[in-house]
Amino acid sequence: MLRVAVLGAGRIGKIHAANVAMNRNAKLVAVADPFGDAASSLADLLSCEASQDPIPLIERDDVDAVVIGTPTDTHVSLMLHAVRLGKAVLCEKPIDLDIAKADAALHEIERLNGRVMLAFNRRFDPSAQQLRQTIDAGTIGEVRQVIITSRDPGLPSREYLKHSGGIFRDMVIHDFDMARWLLGEEPTEVMATASRLVDPALTEVDDFDTVMVQMRTASGRQCHINCCREAVYGYDQRFEIFGSAGMLQNENLRPTTVRRWTRHETEAGEPLLNFFLERYADAYRYELDAFIAAVQAGSPMPVTPFDGRQALRLADCALESALSGRSVRV
Amino acid sequence: MLRVAVLGAGRIGKIHAANVAMNRNAKLVAVADPFGDAASSLADLLSCEASQDPIPLIERDDVDAVVIGTPTDTHVSLMLHAVRLGKAVLCEKPIDLDIAKADAALHEIERLNGRVMLAFNRRFDPSAQQLRQTIDAGTIGEVRQVIITSRDPGLPSREYLKHSGGIFRDMVIHDFDMARWLLGEEPTEVMATASRLVDPALTEVDDFDTVMVQMRTASGRQCHINCCREAVYGYDQRFEIFGSAGMLQNENLRPTTVRRWTRHETEAGEPLLNFFLERYADAYRYELDAFIAAVQAGSPMPVTPFDGRQALRLADCALESALSGRSVRV
Amino acid sequence: MLRVAVLGAGRIGKIHAANVAMNRNAKLVAVADPFGDAASSLADLLSCEASQDPIPLIERDDVDAVVIGTPTDTHVSLMLHAVRLGKAVLCEKPIDLDIAKADAALHEIERLNGRVMLAFNRRFDPSAQQLRQTIDAGTIGEVRQVIITSRDPGLPSREYLKHSGGIFRDMVIHDFDMARWLLGEEPTEVMATASRLVDPALTEVDDFDTVMVQMRTASGRQCHINCCREAVYGYDQRFEIFGSAGMLQNENLRPTTVRRWTRHETEAGEPLLNFFLERYADAYRYELDAFIAAVQAGSPMPVTPFDGRQALRLADCALESALSGRSVRV
Amino acid sequence: MLRVAVLGAGRIGKIHAANVAMNRNAKLVAVADPFGDAASSLADLLSCEASQDPIPLIERDDVDAVVIGTPTDTHVSLMLHAVRLGKAVLCEKPIDLDIAKADAALHEIERLNGRVMLAFNRRFDPSAQQLRQTIDAGTIGEVRQVIITSRDPGLPSREYLKHSGGIFRDMVIHDFDMARWLLGEEPTEVMATASRLVDPALTEVDDFDTVMVQMRTASGRQCHINCCREAVYGYDQRFEIFGSAGMLQNENLRPTTVRRWTRHETEAGEPLLNFFLERYADAYRYELDAFIAAVQAGSPMPVTPFDGRQALRLADCALESALSGRSVRV
Repeated sequence: MLRVAVLGAGRIGKIHAANVAMNRNAKLVAVADPFGDAASSLADLLSCEASQDPIPLIERDDVDAVVIGTPTDTHVSLMLHAVRLGKAVLCEKPIDLDIAKADAALHEIERLNGRVMLAFNRRFDPSAQQLRQTIDAGTIGEVRQVIITSRDPGLPSREYLKHSGGIFRDMVIHDFDMARWLLGEEPTEVMATASRLVDPALTEVDDFDTVMVQMRTASGRQCHINCCREAVYGYDQRFEIFGSAGMLQNENLRPTTVRRWTRHETEAGEPLLNFFLERYADAYRYELDAFIAAVQAGSPMPVTPFDGRQALRLADCALESALSGRSVRV
Repeated sequence: MLRVAVLGAGRIGKIHAANVAMNRNAKLVAVADPFGDAASSLADLLSCEASQDPIPLIERDDVDAVVIGTPTDTHVSLMLHAVRLGKAVLCEKPIDLDIAKADAALHEIERLNGRVMLAFNRRFDPSAQQLRQTIDAGTIGEVRQVIITSRDPGLPSREYLKHSGGIFRDMVIHDFDMARWLLGEEPTEVMATASRLVDPALTEVDDFDTVMVQMRTASGRQCHINCCREAVYGYDQRFEIFGSAGMLQNENLRPTTVRRWTRHETEAGEPLLNFFLERYADAYRYELDAFIAAVQAGSPMPVTPFDGRQALRLADCALESALSGRSVRV
Repeated sequence: MLRVAVLGAGRIGKIHAANVAMNRNAKLVAVADPFGDAASSLADLLSCEASQDPIPLIERDDVDAVVIGTPTDTHVSLMLHAVRLGKAVLCEKPIDLDIAKADAALHEIERLNGRVMLAFNRRFDPSAQQLRQTIDAGTIGEVRQVIITSRDPGLPSREYLKHSGGIFRDMVIHDFDMARWLLGEEPTEVMATASRLVDPALTEVDDFDTVMVQMRTASGRQCHINCCREAVYGYDQRFEIFGSAGMLQNENLRPTTVRRWTRHETEAGEPLLNFFLERYADAYRYELDAFIAAVQAGSPMPVTPFDGRQALRLADCALESALSGRSVRV
Repeated sequence: MLRVAVLGAGRIGKIHAANVAMNRNAKLVAVADPFGDAASSLADLLSCEASQDPIPLIERDDVDAVVIGTPTDTHVSLMLHAVRLGKAVLCEKPIDLDIAKADAALHEIERLNGRVMLAFNRRFDPSAQQLRQTIDAGTIGEVRQVIITSRDPGLPSREYLKHSGGIFRDMVIHDFDMARWLLGEEPTEVMATASRLVDPALTEVDDFDTVMVQMRTASGRQCHINCCREAVYGYDQRFEIFGSAGMLQNENLRPTTVRRWTRHETEAGEPLLNFFLERYADAYRYELDAFIAAVQAGSPMPVTPFDGRQALRLADCALESALSGRSVRV
């Protein structure tokens, strides 16, 4: 039974804490959050202890592992504190918005043989797993092109955007990780273009809302990513993998499979699932299962800090390319 | 907090017990099963008490409600025992294979103002709920025809079939309930035809494996049901509702949304979910939620013993029609 | 080059005449129609001769074959006149509304070794052909159940209905033919139910608008047909064939493959094709090709007068079943 | 009645000639082809005259319009010869592989008020028309992103590739035209990447087989194109248009709508239509109809030589970008 503390009781911390509480191989010891009674009300719900300060929780003897869902700028220090105490860590992305700090953290984790998993939850979506397994089974031969569509249902608040690190580091970073994972090779060259088509006033926060990225690997495999902060029809998350012997696609998820035919519409489906907490509810659960299983088995982490670092590097390259109008070597 | 005992620790009892254990408004007090250590191993898993005898569990003061998942021939006596003690009951279908016994039980429940819900789980499938709500919203106008497709992945064992009551009472009974629920009117006339196309030797157990049923209501609404005990491509569960202003359909569920295109196949999807425990996992959970909510609110049971009785009556009519080659008035 | 006369310049005659004119192995010699200038204006369009009287056209030495698209009550006399003169005939369904007259015609055609093809055009739809070929290839093993959905976009005029012979003989007759063709065996028992849900005043013309038919063959294969004179979402024509090794379905056709996602609808497709002339445009063309090819090769007719007779017999049985509430042996 | 000569009796010339022959507002006067008996056998089939030399056909008084389907390097001279004689021209793409020659031809056509239509047939595909009309109707608001998938079923011969002008000018040129047409704005910046993943030996002909292109317009609209010379599952032609109020997609066409479910595959469809002659058969017909209608009405040509020039320019920019690894301003 792995004894787990969850740091952060916000949107994402709540998900992780509930998944720990439901996992048969784990015990939720405590949750921490500095803001108001976030920690205590979550602790009440899930029957565990609460704390405003995460540090004592990391240091408790009866805590084997910590899940970090705190603000980005606290990730590195909390992670390293836990690693130094020999605790396993599941850390939300990104490691840090600054790649130099991320690299330094990676170096330290490696030096200490730290057990850290990066929380790229989308890899654990059942459809994503099926895509990867079907590629591995050779069904579509050698991968040639990966096409990723990733559109959010609506623009976040200005406040959120101000501290987000920008669309490439905040939103597309998930797609960069999926691109690497599905391509099976490291991208070596990045070309990006970025526009403000949802809200021209995003100049205020020096950000974009609609982007396209094109990448290639050393062997010539290609990847396209398109992202937009607003899709009025809902959260749109699709992958296409084209290979020498076939093609794979996944479709969006819906709450039910009901379709309507009326005088005004034909074969209309139900709306898509609202946003990532709903769309990737299963993925968050399987991610936690994978973390706990890896810690207990002492096997390699399914997603490593290096994966987090690489996705961040691709985001930086994409931003540079979008600003300079040139392709950037990774 | 509703205190619940689950009677029966077989395939279906396990599902109900786990759902009680996960429900935030309920407490799983104990499980009962006469066979070997079925009860104790389930109790270990879910941290509750175990018993070989269901009777003492029903009688415990700290048990407010019982879920009956025992063999069919025990349903009536357990249900009535609980009702007499003022306990709420969620009982698996059918009430009994004999409609006279079912009618007598109904009469007794009514006399005692018993709180009994029949476990027609398919009504609680999210797609089924969406169908019913869309009909209620008037989207497709007046219902004219309901078409139900219901095919199991494979023939059960001879042993199972021998005690099943026959395909109409054992398998099609779910579809009769869905037919009533989706038609919004009682069928008044039943025409059925039955064949042995999977296994001609089913004559041994006096049963059929492939059937069609056609029904109509007093106002002329029509319903078709087709069933087969074996579909090699998997568990096939579909509904179509055709109305004066449109049509609704649901599709089968799959583990993921991945589709494949290769030299040999085009847009091939993943296999269907295996069988009812997987296909209707959500439905079982929502069914239990609905039961607990109704008990706690003192509101009408979402599915009544009368619903169970009517489905059984339609099954009897269908068998009579299949054997006589005549339409039967309900 | 087969020299063809088309009798009847109405809706269906125009289709046949245009298809003859476009067929590279046929020559359209003349068209006949007693009403106004229907024949002459069609003849102008297609550069052939016109006549008000069909008889002289049948008798012309430079006419090898006739296509009969005249009112139903003229079918038998025109067909037999052509057969007696050794002309090949493609005759619209039904042979006659009266099965005794149809049987007498069949007898005479057989006696004379007449070359007559019945125009059950739906068999020649590319999707229908693909269904039949896939069954023949053994892909789905032995056929167990056939489900046919057949809904017209709207109720015809009272005038039309008055002379139509009723929904079973006029509309469902196509589905009876498809049922026989897809089942691969003759139905031996028919159960039908019929309602007036579109227009209760159809009692005036002694007809129904919404029906279901259930049939079985000697070996126990089963077939369900559902029909309605009005589907607000468009002309709905679907087949499902369920077999021991799999299942086949076809979908409705649409003018394009475009799908829409907006704030108000998700994955909504384009409307269905309007009605049979559009939906089965290809089928009519391939039907004529098959007729001409069979005549020129001296090979068996792809659809025989017996097929027309059997479909009519099933329609009569269905009506009898709907009126009596009993199953009828064919 | 427009009197038309078709120049070139190869694969594409045959299509155009047959479409002229079937068009009710046009008369096919003659076809020309220098190779063997290509012209005469096509003329026999379609009942028109034949010539080995295209020049005399252009000059005939009873020829109002010419369709040019000859090798690319003859396009400009034949087109200008016809224009100088006041004949209307439908010319296959590209105008020329050399943009300077194309520009010179454009200049001359403009000076002479020539009536020339460029044969970008894909715009006339019913699904493409529906996409454009739905955008025009405002259904999806302002276009933000266009995603184009364009994969051929197999690599052409080395001989073909040697004279093709390369994948961007030969294959992607169609997609560049569709991109401009669907974006509703001119691309101003092009980023491309190109690989040899189908056949590494394409270095021999200095060409690529797998490419991605990313473009943006002045207002920030974005377009992605992915192309490959080989898709083992068939000819893959899809468009997605993402806008401020919704999204549109089209799907590939298949010969029928039949789908299969077996033990080994679920909901598998029929293969895609083989290649462009089959996939775009309707588009070629509607293209010719549009040409004839525009000539007869004296209305603007639906696709202009400038459209041909712009697509060629984008192809040149893409090649330059792929070779230099930099984005190129149009």
